[in-house]
Amino acid sequence: MYICIYQKINTMENDFEKQFLDLQKKVNKIEKGAKDQLTMVVFSGDLDKILAAMIISVGAAAMDTKVKLFFTFWATAALRDPKKSVQGKTFMGKMFGMMLPKGTPKLKLSKMHMMGMGSAMIKGLMKKNNVASLEEMFKTAGELGIEINVCEMSMNLMGMKKEEFIDYPHMTVCGVATFLADASESKMQLFI
Amino acid sequence: MYICIYQKINTMENDFEKQFLDLQKKVNKIEKGAKDQLTMVVFSGDLDKILAAMIISVGAAAMDTKVKLFFTFWATAALRDPKKSVQGKTFMGKMFGMMLPKGTPKLKLSKMHMMGMGSAMIKGLMKKNNVASLEEMFKTAGELGIEINVCEMSMNLMGMKKEEFIDYPHMTVCGVATFLADASESKMQLFI
Amino acid sequence: MYICIYQKINTMENDFEKQFLDLQKKVNKIEKGAKDQLTMVVFSGDLDKILAAMIISVGAAAMDTKVKLFFTFWATAALRDPKKSVQGKTFMGKMFGMMLPKGTPKLKLSKMHMMGMGSAMIKGLMKKNNVASLEEMFKTAGELGIEINVCEMSMNLMGMKKEEFIDYPHMTVCGVATFLADASESKMQLFI
Repeated sequence: MYICIYQKINTMENDFEKQFLDLQKKVNKIEKGAKDQLTMVVFSGDLDKILAAMIISVGAAAMDTKVKLFFTFWATAALRDPKKSVQGKTFMGKMFGMMLPKGTPKLKLSKMHMMGMGSAMIKGLMKKNNVASLEEMFKTAGELGIEINVCEMSMNLMGMKKEEFIDYPHMTVCGVATFLADASESKMQLFI
Repeated sequence: MYICIYQKINTMENDFEKQFLDLQKKVNKIEKGAKDQLTMVVFSGDLDKILAAMIISVGAAAMDTKVKLFFTFWATAALRDPKKSVQGKTFMGKMFGMMLPKGTPKLKLSKMHMMGMGSAMIKGLMKKNNVASLEEMFKTAGELGIEINVCEMSMNLMGMKKEEFIDYPHMTVCGVATFLADASESKMQLFI
Repeated sequence: MYICIYQKINTMENDFEKQFLDLQKKVNKIEKGAKDQLTMVVFSGDLDKILAAMIISVGAAAMDTKVKLFFTFWATAALRDPKKSVQGKTFMGKMFGMMLPKGTPKLKLSKMHMMGMGSAMIKGLMKKNNVASLEEMFKTAGELGIEINVCEMSMNLMGMKKEEFIDYPHMTVCGVATFLADASESKMQLFI
């Protein structure tokens, strides 16, 4: 009798343990892929879109969500520091350097740029409405630990160098694989 | 002997209960963050992009997915009712009011606008192909319970007031924190 | 005494089984909605954005993530094969056919197109930096099993036919419901 009961208990325990461990493994895998993290591709180099990206990012970081930004294509130009210049660029690199806006102060609106009047209007209105400027937002982003990853391929194509970018505490140069790894672990992904 | 068995059973029960409750808590947290919900930032004010946003939204709502839209920047202008006008706008508000399209009938295509010819072509083709017009889609969206949240900061910047927007049953004015809270609970997020 | 123990064990077993099955069902449902899959709307017909979409897609597929692309609106034009032409188009279909770029070689940059100079520059730089051309990326995408779904409504609106598209091993014509079903099962969604 005792043996019978013992066996029943042991079988139960083993069965349960196996099933439970299976489920636990599954849940842990799901949990790992649904981190409270926002991964964002910042592709556009337009003032309004980079503003939107930074407003969402700073808001998320303030709510304790981990934020990882991937600056690629036109957006990389927004990271340039107007006060820095680098030597040894190729002809093409110099061309792109001249044609693309040098940092956030030179970004244009996607609509109604109107020779700079639209951008000036928006900036004036932001100030009047106590909205932080784009430069202030990058500063806050750095303080909140928002990661800025810059697409290496875009930098190579446009002949940009890390030395000409703004001083930012969490900036790395990386490839598309890093973005994908981070995105697949995040609860939220956006392409701006 | 009995005591021994009892102890074994009780230990098992307690061990199991603790582990099980831990796992259950984890699963509930994951479940809460993966609602069958689509949260979308509608940033663009282009006819084609707002069309895309509404087609996806109405489709999702028809499949019983909860849809929460966040109209921001240029998209807010699309919510204006051409028949309404408000008093007491600031100079800048009036300027934006004149420059931005007054509601859906005035939206332009992002490409091939061609002085309105492209937009007229698309609208004609939509009618011919029995695709609902943008105005009809907003009506259906309201009937399906799709929420439209309007970005307060954008409204302030562009001097827009809620009274000039279309009559829509589920419209709220809110900030970026509301969007982030909703987005982090949603299975799907898009930025259009 | 035995009976008492047996009852306790049986009650435990049943209680546990019910709770466990409930949790298991929940986890399976969550798992089904969080597949290692990237579902992307490719809306834009700009060279730079389609490049970005394909770089992300090929990267993801190389990392064993299932990729499902939904080509809609302007992006459908990028799928046209320059060497193919179809008969029996309507007047509007012919108009769109002429106005939209015929396939990837004719795509324009969203910025700095400069009468084709910008696009040529980017293509030259891609070659120089050993980045695969857009045409090569589509080939690789096909080999990696990336699915291309083309929006039926867009094709109807613009009078496009499947026969004029490139030869691609995994191309289907479908509606928004297919996109939504796939997107809601995916861990990652993007709108480009």
